[in-house]
Amino acid sequence: MFSYIKRLLIGRPLKSTELGEQKLNKTKALAILSSDALSSVAYGPEQILIVLATVGAAAFWFSLPIAVGVLILLVALILSYRQIIHAYPHGGGAYVVSKQNLGMNPGLVAGGSLLVDYILTVAVSVSAGTDAITSAFPALHEHNVAIAVLFVIFITVLNLRGVTESASILAYPVYLFVFALFVLIGVGLYNIAAGNVSPAAQTSIGEPVAGISLFILLRAFASGSSALTGVEAISNAIPNFKDPAPKNAAKTLAAMGTLLALLFSGIVFLAYSYGIAPHAEVTVVSQIAEEVFGRNFMYYFIQGTTALILILAANTGYSAFPLLAVNLAKDKFIPRMFTVRGDRLGYSNGIMILGISSIILILVFKGQTEHLIPLYAVGVFIPFTLSQTGMMVKWIREKPSGWFLKLIINSVGALISFIVTIVFFLTKFAQVWPVLIFLPIIIFVFHKIRKHYEDVGDQLRLTTCEPAVPIEGNVIIVPVAGITHVVENSLNYAKSLNPDQIIAVYVAFERDEEKKFEEKWKKWQPDVRLVTLHSYYRSIINPLTKFVDIVEHKAKESNYQVTVVIPQFIPKKGWHNILHNQSSLLIRTFLLYRRNVVITTVPYHFKK
Amino acid sequence: MFSYIKRLLIGRPLKSTELGEQKLNKTKALAILSSDALSSVAYGPEQILIVLATVGAAAFWFSLPIAVGVLILLVALILSYRQIIHAYPHGGGAYVVSKQNLGMNPGLVAGGSLLVDYILTVAVSVSAGTDAITSAFPALHEHNVAIAVLFVIFITVLNLRGVTESASILAYPVYLFVFALFVLIGVGLYNIAAGNVSPAAQTSIGEPVAGISLFILLRAFASGSSALTGVEAISNAIPNFKDPAPKNAAKTLAAMGTLLALLFSGIVFLAYSYGIAPHAEVTVVSQIAEEVFGRNFMYYFIQGTTALILILAANTGYSAFPLLAVNLAKDKFIPRMFTVRGDRLGYSNGIMILGISSIILILVFKGQTEHLIPLYAVGVFIPFTLSQTGMMVKWIREKPSGWFLKLIINSVGALISFIVTIVFFLTKFAQVWPVLIFLPIIIFVFHKIRKHYEDVGDQLRLTTCEPAVPIEGNVIIVPVAGITHVVENSLNYAKSLNPDQIIAVYVAFERDEEKKFEEKWKKWQPDVRLVTLHSYYRSIINPLTKFVDIVEHKAKESNYQVTVVIPQFIPKKGWHNILHNQSSLLIRTFLLYRRNVVITTVPYHFKK
Repeated sequence: MFSYIKRLLIGRPLKSTELGEQKLNKTKALAILSSDALSSVAYGPEQILIVLATVGAAAFWFSLPIAVGVLILLVALILSYRQIIHAYPHGGGAYVVSKQNLGMNPGLVAGGSLLVDYILTVAVSVSAGTDAITSAFPALHEHNVAIAVLFVIFITVLNLRGVTESASILAYPVYLFVFALFVLIGVGLYNIAAGNVSPAAQTSIGEPVAGISLFILLRAFASGSSALTGVEAISNAIPNFKDPAPKNAAKTLAAMGTLLALLFSGIVFLAYSYGIAPHAEVTVVSQIAEEVFGRNFMYYFIQGTTALILILAANTGYSAFPLLAVNLAKDKFIPRMFTVRGDRLGYSNGIMILGISSIILILVFKGQTEHLIPLYAVGVFIPFTLSQTGMMVKWIREKPSGWFLKLIINSVGALISFIVTIVFFLTKFAQVWPVLIFLPIIIFVFHKIRKHYEDVGDQLRLTTCEPAVPIEGNVIIVPVAGITHVVENSLNYAKSLNPDQIIAVYVAFERDEEKKFEEKWKKWQPDVRLVTLHSYYRSIINPLTKFVDIVEHKAKESNYQVTVVIPQFIPKKGWHNILHNQSSLLIRTFLLYRRNVVITTVPYHFKK
Repeated sequence: MFSYIKRLLIGRPLKSTELGEQKLNKTKALAILSSDALSSVAYGPEQILIVLATVGAAAFWFSLPIAVGVLILLVALILSYRQIIHAYPHGGGAYVVSKQNLGMNPGLVAGGSLLVDYILTVAVSVSAGTDAITSAFPALHEHNVAIAVLFVIFITVLNLRGVTESASILAYPVYLFVFALFVLIGVGLYNIAAGNVSPAAQTSIGEPVAGISLFILLRAFASGSSALTGVEAISNAIPNFKDPAPKNAAKTLAAMGTLLALLFSGIVFLAYSYGIAPHAEVTVVSQIAEEVFGRNFMYYFIQGTTALILILAANTGYSAFPLLAVNLAKDKFIPRMFTVRGDRLGYSNGIMILGISSIILILVFKGQTEHLIPLYAVGVFIPFTLSQTGMMVKWIREKPSGWFLKLIINSVGALISFIVTIVFFLTKFAQVWPVLIFLPIIIFVFHKIRKHYEDVGDQLRLTTCEPAVPIEGNVIIVPVAGITHVVENSLNYAKSLNPDQIIAVYVAFERDEEKKFEEKWKKWQPDVRLVTLHSYYRSIINPLTKFVDIVEHKAKESNYQVTVVIPQFIPKKGWHNILHNQSSLLIRTFLLYRRNVVITTVPYHFKK
């Protein structure tokens, strides 16, 4: 039943050897890995204008130099990450680069913030996309949270089906969005060139503006650079590419950078040229589209593809999170289960944890995750800074041919990323402070987990641990609840093992019951020793545990092993389980975790 | 940790021999078992007036004859239940009486509707009491649901502590409520006698009223008789009384009937004399109290004790539900776990199930459970009718001395209860139809459960089942994950049992890994046969299960028993469990439930 539903949702299991077929070509990779970065042009330019609007419309011309700044940062990041892709062809991104060049803890800072960040990505972008849809259909507005959760479940299932199948579905909306924005920018620029746009709406470039300050400009710049989140996704996901993976990844990165630069600068320029001011209810892109097309088909096409790509931006998180988790799990910082591939060869545990965590975030924030955006941006720029710094160290250490140019590229990237990070802390501290709490906690937990795995390794290794104590003989304890077929079954099994001693144990609640049972037993199993225990408090476990303790203590002296044989009913139907007292399960758990006894479960399958 | 909190909440465990000390004397029993019935005078008279108000204030005088009708019903019920107490001194009430005299299915109808009814009692009365409190403190109004849930948890914990301790706490509010109402009625009657009340407010008795119909009078009567719910509680709970239990119970029942009759008729008479009309926001009792005292201390005292007793009415459900559940469980209609006494000698499973179910009801109805009242009333009058009818059959069958008078008493009770039930269905069908759905379902489930227990009994009894197949020899399968100390441990244990064969099984995901492992194994354990299985789908369970199947099939031919030895890590700290793949648990569950193999768990306790 469960496995049928599973098969229906995620498809037939794939053999490990089919792994190569699941890899991505460049077109699909661009779609699957760029939706996060590309979708941010839907809100990045607006973020700049919102900050400038606090001074006044006269300050809007500053959006042009700020956009140039963002573009420089973008170019620096793309070039830096290109170098990372070639230097680390097995992927891992910021975590691997920081760890190898800067040391364990900087690596964990990068890895930890990215891990949390991908969860934020999913929650924030799905909520934003849902808002866009319910703005179009206000009747759905009250179901916002439910819709967002359904989208997360849908994307999770797509990803559990496997990487290429989800890419096929995801490719269309991403390319449609890019196409729609290019049409918008093209028609918009044509209108300007044709003189259809009144220049009166524009503020003059270079004119001094009262009230503008470096603080505000930096804040606008930091806000604008939130459009660059998602740029690192490709360098994390190199193992998902078809061979030659690094080369294909680098080309995809370049294509994404070009698209992002064109769309971002196009939107900023149109917003400036059409004299658009940010507005609480209508987005900047929507205003531009209305100015350019009016409320016709193209307008709704742009709005629709924007909503879609915002939701699909979540998918970037689904590609990057499981791969990062694999790297952390291989280094033993998070549970090993993240390294296991599921039926469809995706890292299904990572995918599910990501889905569940982001659903929890959406529920906790009731779908209003907008104010998480700065937190999410700072969580990206910390690993940006660390990985670029790591690359600087690498070039200085290794000094390969042409290392100086490479060093300069990464240095510029590191410096700008660092400045953006600092600006976030200075200008938006009220929203980004949680990162200072949760990063130390995460890193503490990482170390705790690794410590445990290392301890376990030490204890399991044959060379380092004490040799096993030889077992000289066996004592078998059989708790009995009555004179039934099940007890007979367990006793037969115990006898067949020829132990040195079999002890049947009966726990009685009343005195006369005790006597009666002993008499019956003598007739039924005269050769098996019976011990009856009296329970004053109606508990079976307490007297049984005490008895097992005594036997184990004695057995230990002569290196005997104590085994407790517990019968377990296996009913025909699942719901029958609640009709049985489950004392066998309780006894088993209790003895196994507290004492050094072997627990043998003899199943008794009911026939009806 | 868990056991410490448990001890703190419900107290130290009690020995089974301390049971007698936990029994109730009459004063405490009256408090603990009458709160449901007595609390209903807070809303019963009002229910009558609400129906009459649909015709007009002129019809209010009909409340007096209707109250007389309700009093007759009350007297009939009290006399009938007095006879039940003496005839069935071991308790069980409607379920036992109906079952023994009318047959199994009428008994189950009575038992099933009471079972659901007690859950409704708790939900409805706690919600009503919470409403009364939050009406006094409107700031708390938005937390209604949370407050109601906390009250249910509080009462549940009280009852888990044990019957007498909860009675001590509960006795005060019940007696305070009775005292408060007697003062109210006394002062009210004095005012009337002293001529301080204007007779102008009253409608003349006996005057014909336009629009009044038999339907409305019946409806008013049915509504008024909702004040009689809870009358059966004492006859269900006889085993909780001190010896001589039936005599004490009968006296308590008489006392409760007298109190209920006095309070009910007093309130109806005062409401009529003061010319009070039902009002959406202020209860009838509150209006009377305001007329009699004004808004002084006594007014708030009456309101406060009313709120308290409404919440405590829930406690009646806690006394009756677990005892009814024991009776049903002894007859195998519900899971056996309801017959087990907890640490404090109460039937803790019944208490907890009742608490959880009523919390669910409160959450589902968001604390607005008022419209469940008719459903709840009909759920009481069905077992009333059945048990009185059962008593009729008993008298006719057994014909003890004075049987004819007894027969008449129960016949009157049965007839009136039956009429009330029919009136509920005729006049409030929109609210009581669910009973027609859930009763058949419950009875179906009852029979299903009993069928299962009987099947199990047949299969366990040594006389009826096939003799056990003798075990000729043992094959032990040890799944191994590597060459580690844990595997060594498991192999040592398997060897110590001297089985006919030991097979180590290794599941490999990759071909070269397979070869390497086989070579290592040959050096390490040359005398243990190793079988390597290749897993194409990265599953350990599938290939292992298939292999176990083959071995089991062969072993069966010569009556060999197959045992699978599974090592299990026992970490030092609980949270470490999530760091291990839990494959041992998965393999165990899978093999145990699907195949006929014995599962032996060898614990490996980590030292750090």
